[in-house]
Amino acid sequence: MSTQSSSVTQVVARLQQVRALLRDEGVSALLVPSADPHLSEYLPAYWQARQWLSGFQGSVGTLVVTGEFAGLWVDSRYWEQADKELSGSGITLMKLRPGQPGPLDWLAEQAGAGDVVAVDGAVMALASARTLREKLQARGARLRTDTDLVASLWHDRAPLPGNPVYAHLPPYASESRASRLAALRESLAERGAQWHFLATLDDIAWLFNLRGSDVTYNPVFVAFALVGQDSAELFLDLGKLDAELAGQLQHEGIGLRDYAEVGAALAAIPAQSALLIDPVRVTCGLLDHVDGQVQLLEGLNPTTLAKSRKSDTDARFIRQAMAEDGAALCEFFAWLESALGQRRVTEVDIDTELTAARARRPDYVSASFATIAAFNANGAMPHYRATEQSHAVIEGDGLLLIDSGGQYLGGTTDITRMVPVGTPSSEQKRDCTRVFKGMSALSRARFPRGILSPLLDAIARAPLWADSVDYGHGTGHGVGYFMNVHEGPQVIAYQAPATPQTAMQPGMITSIEPGTYRPGRWGVRIENLVLNRAAAGSEFGEYLEFETLTLCPIDTRCLQLELLTQEEREWLNDYHAQVRERLSPLLDGAGLAWLQERTVAV
Amino acid sequence: MSTQSSSVTQVVARLQQVRALLRDEGVSALLVPSADPHLSEYLPAYWQARQWLSGFQGSVGTLVVTGEFAGLWVDSRYWEQADKELSGSGITLMKLRPGQPGPLDWLAEQAGAGDVVAVDGAVMALASARTLREKLQARGARLRTDTDLVASLWHDRAPLPGNPVYAHLPPYASESRASRLAALRESLAERGAQWHFLATLDDIAWLFNLRGSDVTYNPVFVAFALVGQDSAELFLDLGKLDAELAGQLQHEGIGLRDYAEVGAALAAIPAQSALLIDPVRVTCGLLDHVDGQVQLLEGLNPTTLAKSRKSDTDARFIRQAMAEDGAALCEFFAWLESALGQRRVTEVDIDTELTAARARRPDYVSASFATIAAFNANGAMPHYRATEQSHAVIEGDGLLLIDSGGQYLGGTTDITRMVPVGTPSSEQKRDCTRVFKGMSALSRARFPRGILSPLLDAIARAPLWADSVDYGHGTGHGVGYFMNVHEGPQVIAYQAPATPQTAMQPGMITSIEPGTYRPGRWGVRIENLVLNRAAAGSEFGEYLEFETLTLCPIDTRCLQLELLTQEEREWLNDYHAQVRERLSPLLDGAGLAWLQERTVAV
Repeated sequence: MSTQSSSVTQVVARLQQVRALLRDEGVSALLVPSADPHLSEYLPAYWQARQWLSGFQGSVGTLVVTGEFAGLWVDSRYWEQADKELSGSGITLMKLRPGQPGPLDWLAEQAGAGDVVAVDGAVMALASARTLREKLQARGARLRTDTDLVASLWHDRAPLPGNPVYAHLPPYASESRASRLAALRESLAERGAQWHFLATLDDIAWLFNLRGSDVTYNPVFVAFALVGQDSAELFLDLGKLDAELAGQLQHEGIGLRDYAEVGAALAAIPAQSALLIDPVRVTCGLLDHVDGQVQLLEGLNPTTLAKSRKSDTDARFIRQAMAEDGAALCEFFAWLESALGQRRVTEVDIDTELTAARARRPDYVSASFATIAAFNANGAMPHYRATEQSHAVIEGDGLLLIDSGGQYLGGTTDITRMVPVGTPSSEQKRDCTRVFKGMSALSRARFPRGILSPLLDAIARAPLWADSVDYGHGTGHGVGYFMNVHEGPQVIAYQAPATPQTAMQPGMITSIEPGTYRPGRWGVRIENLVLNRAAAGSEFGEYLEFETLTLCPIDTRCLQLELLTQEEREWLNDYHAQVRERLSPLLDGAGLAWLQERTVAV
Repeated sequence: MSTQSSSVTQVVARLQQVRALLRDEGVSALLVPSADPHLSEYLPAYWQARQWLSGFQGSVGTLVVTGEFAGLWVDSRYWEQADKELSGSGITLMKLRPGQPGPLDWLAEQAGAGDVVAVDGAVMALASARTLREKLQARGARLRTDTDLVASLWHDRAPLPGNPVYAHLPPYASESRASRLAALRESLAERGAQWHFLATLDDIAWLFNLRGSDVTYNPVFVAFALVGQDSAELFLDLGKLDAELAGQLQHEGIGLRDYAEVGAALAAIPAQSALLIDPVRVTCGLLDHVDGQVQLLEGLNPTTLAKSRKSDTDARFIRQAMAEDGAALCEFFAWLESALGQRRVTEVDIDTELTAARARRPDYVSASFATIAAFNANGAMPHYRATEQSHAVIEGDGLLLIDSGGQYLGGTTDITRMVPVGTPSSEQKRDCTRVFKGMSALSRARFPRGILSPLLDAIARAPLWADSVDYGHGTGHGVGYFMNVHEGPQVIAYQAPATPQTAMQPGMITSIEPGTYRPGRWGVRIENLVLNRAAAGSEFGEYLEFETLTLCPIDTRCLQLELLTQEEREWLNDYHAQVRERLSPLLDGAGLAWLQERTVAV
């Protein structure tokens, strides 16, 4: 994603202008979430109002500005970064902790009778807007969602992205868009809905077997979709489609309309019909267009669940992509080991070399997120990103954390490995060992089909908790198929609500990535992707287990092997034997030698 | 609890009468939950309408009767029993499964416009009534809660219980009722409440340091309490109090009123004041008395959380009670081993002998629940109870499951142990070993203070899930202090909603009791009680760990020791060393010899 750096002086001036505007408009507080009309995780620059106004570069954070106060709520991943970036801006860092009140609660607490809180309804999820509206009403205050107050001040705002859209083709696309549309319409009929509106870009890209590059790292394009029992319309900048693809889509009965026409299309949904929407995946501003006589049916987008359950064909391509990705990593690690101590290597070089190694592999498209190459203290920031202006040189002793991933036509990868530099301390190795234990424990787990995924988290954390160690982020996120590296509905995180939607089903791909972060010192994370597959059933029901998809050695020089149990040691050796067998055919020379050395049984 | 046996013929006749009444009253469906106005787990006979009408003797089940259908919803603990007891009654066994629709959903699904569903509001929790009302309204149907339809047909209904109430005295009662009332009033003030209404018997007994025996096994008495900032009133049959205790309570400013006056007292709460109630711990029928101008504040009863967090003094007495209980168990097991093969021993004899062994111990009051002594196939029914009419003789080969507990002035116990009879099969031993692994894993766990207890369940279940084995009940329930053997708010069960109220706090006592049930063959369960205590904190926050309170050998002849990990073996040996050290001073003769033999290190 492109980021726009704001100086502290600019931030201070912008806050002043915004406050003047709030006074003029009679608004008591302005809420600026990190959000767009598609509720994307990564925002095109056009919608990065929160970043523009606060100067905080992290991908997630919520800004609140009142006459006297400005605060930015961020989760523990970003505390260090926000602390640095907000310095001098007058914006207070508000630490968001699981289970504790967030910005919406804060707004409600502060609100008095007659107060008006404003938020751009176009970028606020219906569910969040409802919650906030209720909280404010209870205090006699009001929520205003009809305007984007920041827009009038934001003169250097980026344009909407306009990158080309292309088809995701067979054999990688294992199901036709006709078949996906038919299945969706069946789901709608089952729920009694004639219409379904989709705003989430990954759902749309998946449903229509289309891809784009409007959002860095996510192969999606900015669009909306409205699907009826006899129609399907895509709303997007029509210049993104070449004539052939446009003709093909129209031939398949898919209407193509300009992005700006979505409001009119929503307004034209006939009264008395039923519209299925997902209240956490559509904004209140968009739904304001819908006639009040249309019945809203609420539930998970059927595509969100369908997309999460990869087909057997998908899984075959993913295994190939994982092997290519692992081979690229071996080549990169071989280079890194030879370079360290021989030449100056920075965190930025690591990104460059690693991306180049991936780019040499067949079917590679792009990185799946910004590489995190973080040495020692930088590793303590779970979402750290080295820049040309600010980065560390890899030298001396310690731990290098590398979290990276690729988009391939046949899958999406996401992997974190720890690299020992010089001689890591025993405390550092102790942290790596504990994290390995957590990763291994959950990787080996079997569990009842349909279990709510947050309930599995304790299996990964127990070995860390045993030493009073924990980490603030989730253990696992869903991963798409040549699609967003973060997707739902499952999530392995004890901080996440265990809703029925999070149930584990066959075919889902999830990360397992426990960590340990010691601010100012170092950070540890080890991450594999795993696929839910059927395990042996029994009189007690159906069971699932994980197939580890990620193929890359885990550096045993970071581990205190004497602390491993028999089961952990066996799992590690089995994993390394498999990695060696699967990657050897794809490697030669230094990469192969590195693979062989790093997969020796312990 | 007293149970009333109903013959199938009686059940059929009663259903006929009820259906006639439904027709007369224009009621489409009657809902009969297992509940009383105190939402007790075990019901005095007066409120066992569901049992009277269905013939099902289990403690939990929900009956629905319509013109054409009668169904009883029970959870997996009771499937076998209900199947047997409903046979011939025309009542369908409806298997209640976690996460799947229950009787309220069924009623809503069946309901059509104009339908009326009736339930006695006096015994339906406010929260449940609201849920059902909403579901019915969505279908155009109506909930009626103003009458107890069964009452007019139930001629042999038992009277309200009238057993004496007595004081729980120091040193066992570690805090005065004045101090508890003061703390409660402080909680009320913090929440802006002037009034608090309590219907749950354990909350009332705890708050006033009183005990009774109106409910078998639970040392509580039937009462309500209304606490204001300057008043506290108890509503009960005044004949239960002797003059001295009544005088003492009145001297402390506690008003004593007849049980029947509670409605009038609720009606007299001044308009505009705020009343704190717990919507799952008060029935809608009672709240119907409250003036519509009174503001209802909803939340967990402050006493429910306070009661769950045992004081250090409580813990000292509990450890004593656990030692006495363990010594009683050793004497009983020594007798059992000597008797088996020498004389005829039945499941009923086991209850008799075990209860007698406990009764010889100081400060013993009663059993804390009905002893479950279940041989082989009977063990597959988690809540089996042997009766004079129907029980097994302990002979041949297999497994004997004994789940029992005692009420002592200084604590409540609950323990399950497996006894090998003859030569258990290797499959039986395999089940015991897996259950032991689960129990040991969770017993050894450390976890963040405040974690929602359902999230810990996977730690106990992972060793069972590894072989596609699971059990339908929770892993752990809270346990009171000379109080109900089941109490909240914490619960270790992945089937339970992880609400904020379930957070783990120091001082809570919980059971750890994984199991395995093979219908028609055998059942396995191993259970200890554990106390939440502070563990070493760290930069990552506060941590808790479990102190195992239960003291009694785990019979290693039921285990496949070669399957134990090093950690499991060490935990077992450490536990047995501690059991031997703590119980030896309380035993001599055969009991001591048995203890020594059964605690030899493996």
